[in-house]
Amino acid sequence: MIARDTGAAHTLRDMRERLVVIGGDAAGMSAASQARRRKGPDELEVVAFERGRRTSYSACGIPYWIAGDATGPDKLIARTPEKHRARDIDVRLGTEVVEIDRDRGRVRTRDVLGAEEWTGYDQLVIATGAVPKRPPIPGIDSDGVYGVQILDDGEDIIEALDRRPLRDAVVVGGGYIGVEMAEALLRHGLRVTLVERSEQPMATLDPDMGRLVREAMECLGITVVTGAPVREVLTGADGRVRAVATDVGEYPADVVVLGLGVSPNTGLARDAGLPIGAHGGLLTDRAMRVRGEEAIWAGGDCVEVLNLVSGGMQHIPLGTHANKQGRVIGTNIGGGYATFPGVVGTAVSKVCDLEIARTGLKESQARAAGLQYVTAVIESTSRAGYYPGAAPMTVKAIAERRTGRLLGLQIVGREGAGKRVDIGAVALTAGMTVEQMTALDLGYAPPFSPVWDPVLVAARKVDDKVRADGNGA
Amino acid sequence: MIARDTGAAHTLRDMRERLVVIGGDAAGMSAASQARRRKGPDELEVVAFERGRRTSYSACGIPYWIAGDATGPDKLIARTPEKHRARDIDVRLGTEVVEIDRDRGRVRTRDVLGAEEWTGYDQLVIATGAVPKRPPIPGIDSDGVYGVQILDDGEDIIEALDRRPLRDAVVVGGGYIGVEMAEALLRHGLRVTLVERSEQPMATLDPDMGRLVREAMECLGITVVTGAPVREVLTGADGRVRAVATDVGEYPADVVVLGLGVSPNTGLARDAGLPIGAHGGLLTDRAMRVRGEEAIWAGGDCVEVLNLVSGGMQHIPLGTHANKQGRVIGTNIGGGYATFPGVVGTAVSKVCDLEIARTGLKESQARAAGLQYVTAVIESTSRAGYYPGAAPMTVKAIAERRTGRLLGLQIVGREGAGKRVDIGAVALTAGMTVEQMTALDLGYAPPFSPVWDPVLVAARKVDDKVRADGNGA
Repeated sequence: MIARDTGAAHTLRDMRERLVVIGGDAAGMSAASQARRRKGPDELEVVAFERGRRTSYSACGIPYWIAGDATGPDKLIARTPEKHRARDIDVRLGTEVVEIDRDRGRVRTRDVLGAEEWTGYDQLVIATGAVPKRPPIPGIDSDGVYGVQILDDGEDIIEALDRRPLRDAVVVGGGYIGVEMAEALLRHGLRVTLVERSEQPMATLDPDMGRLVREAMECLGITVVTGAPVREVLTGADGRVRAVATDVGEYPADVVVLGLGVSPNTGLARDAGLPIGAHGGLLTDRAMRVRGEEAIWAGGDCVEVLNLVSGGMQHIPLGTHANKQGRVIGTNIGGGYATFPGVVGTAVSKVCDLEIARTGLKESQARAAGLQYVTAVIESTSRAGYYPGAAPMTVKAIAERRTGRLLGLQIVGREGAGKRVDIGAVALTAGMTVEQMTALDLGYAPPFSPVWDPVLVAARKVDDKVRADGNGA
Repeated sequence: MIARDTGAAHTLRDMRERLVVIGGDAAGMSAASQARRRKGPDELEVVAFERGRRTSYSACGIPYWIAGDATGPDKLIARTPEKHRARDIDVRLGTEVVEIDRDRGRVRTRDVLGAEEWTGYDQLVIATGAVPKRPPIPGIDSDGVYGVQILDDGEDIIEALDRRPLRDAVVVGGGYIGVEMAEALLRHGLRVTLVERSEQPMATLDPDMGRLVREAMECLGITVVTGAPVREVLTGADGRVRAVATDVGEYPADVVVLGLGVSPNTGLARDAGLPIGAHGGLLTDRAMRVRGEEAIWAGGDCVEVLNLVSGGMQHIPLGTHANKQGRVIGTNIGGGYATFPGVVGTAVSKVCDLEIARTGLKESQARAAGLQYVTAVIESTSRAGYYPGAAPMTVKAIAERRTGRLLGLQIVGREGAGKRVDIGAVALTAGMTVEQMTALDLGYAPPFSPVWDPVLVAARKVDDKVRADGNGA
């Protein structure tokens, strides 16, 4: 098929600048919105191509929607295509970009009927997101196996749960999505087994902290099987899933949910010869301009980000980064100036009332970055011990040997535990030492904290080790 | 009476160093404990004089105890005299230090029976705390008027509430203690009027944020009267309080609680010729050594602290500072090295489910420090909008004109609002600009935060103003 060519962005008829956005979710639509805020329709034309049928939704909300905590999918949509259109953003749903022609500054699109068209751009934003990892496991595409990536996945799972009484669920992968989905399925009355190939669930934590998550999940009645790579998804005569076979055993399953993580969706960018990093993501500068390009920008789950603590690149698909990066892109396209300097690797989640948070480097990451470190683990409470609702909390702090620079913080606890990780996130961004942290003037009152905030207790304890280590060396 | 003289610290019999601590609460006993941890009884003798009958208690917990949220007073005591004694700290209760003799390195004490004694010291820690402000208002010492300073005050108030049915309470002063006490009395079924001389309660906030607190208190059924300095506490024929008369009206009162703040208790230090600042507190260096002294240290509510944002000295009586300062003193006396660099003015409180927090400078403080600034106020929620329990939150950010340095943050909201102030506290300590803050990698997941944390939304908005202002100047 020969694509119809609408020509370059500038025609005699229309001398406006044209911004083309590929991908209608967080990064792409934040960029579009911010550019529009700064430049009106008489200056800038904004066209956004989205291959699906929705824009600007919260994929992070899917497990909570399935759990029944959020009514969805409408509530998970921050801004509908109609609302974007009302702001003069030309959203084209069901339209996939299949080629980027950098030489002529245009993209080739294909709609649901297969019709192709070329659209010229002056500025291009690549926000193609990520695709779920699907290892070549026999049976992984069987009926009854679901991902948790787009809103349709959520609808499919809810429909499956509603359609007939199900008894057993297996969640494959013990990361954030896996843990959240285990809770969601538990709350639907299913018997839930979580299988994880590594030593503990929540591999973004060190194993000693991951063990606390495992214990809490087991207390909730979730069977947690670790060191268990999946060999095969077994199906019955009806072709539907019936069990999951792993290296350590076989687990019955009426439904299987995959939480195996995602990879940057960068085939299109790769084909166009744009720079891709070791983790498969697009490489950009701090302004979120694709490296070496003048007019091509990228953000969201399709890019790699700089870890400000390790100095290395990482792929961290997270809505909050996508939103920030999109806003930076839109600000820059709109004639302002903004940067996304990088991340410190903060993440927070919960399973029932257990809150799980981390920021910076865990031990294995510190080692990989060639850093020497000391660690401390402390137990404290979320409020003054005598105040009702004071809940236990375990905090692990990691500091660089000799310098005492904070390298990482991990928290597992109950209400009030998770967001304390922000203290570490800001301290890491500022490059603080744990000694400096011990003097931090954090909010104190009995309903909010013990007189020494648990994070400070951890900083104190690891600072003692830095000092002892310095004396001994 | 002539004091018995036990001589200097060093006698032929005992060549150990002697640490004398004046005041057995947070700062003093933290110093004693930390020094003891680092030096055993064979090296260091530790004597702590406390004029009351308790040690190491949480005065901050008194309003919550009265409210019924904390069983007290035992629970409010972090460490009893017996426990200190078990660690070889010689706690002498009911013993007041009445003179410091710097020339001979000794203190004169007086016990409850009036017996006096000299005790020599090698190191002296002054942790004499604060005394409640009692302006010369007629009737302020009447029966039925209570302070909220020591645990005995709490017992007195609870006894008064239990003894007979009371109907009306007046709380004088709308600061943290006043607001917390208003709630406590409300929960005892009293009709509560809070009278405050300034424009709004919570004068540590700007008036626009204080208004939110006022409105919330009024919703709870508390009568809030502002611009109302107290003229007189009126009593009945029985000598008991019956009403409080202010400039704007008279309010019936069966019980009056004073929350008028405290002043550093530094008469003893002043008499000894030690340096006292403009706010009445002892002046120390960063190691918490009294300025110009070799062997005299001070910490807690009796000292002034450096505000790291304004560069000025302040008196901020708060248990968390007292604990940190005491630990710094004990570390230094014990042969280590530690500093208390200063504060950023963080405070957090709550009235029922309304959380109130502030850090840094409010507008009037920024003006007083000679700083030019811009402000922004935003409304957001504690969690993703679609997640159950997402509660409204108002955040105000203040940034320096031209530089964009964060100067202050104020938060009023419901659950999950208050401790977010820690983000601002760490950013202020690090001297971050609001532009830097907009890129902070804070913990995000729907149960914990909208995709843009409310603090970041405030930083973003005030950053826009910094930029607009820079362009316009």
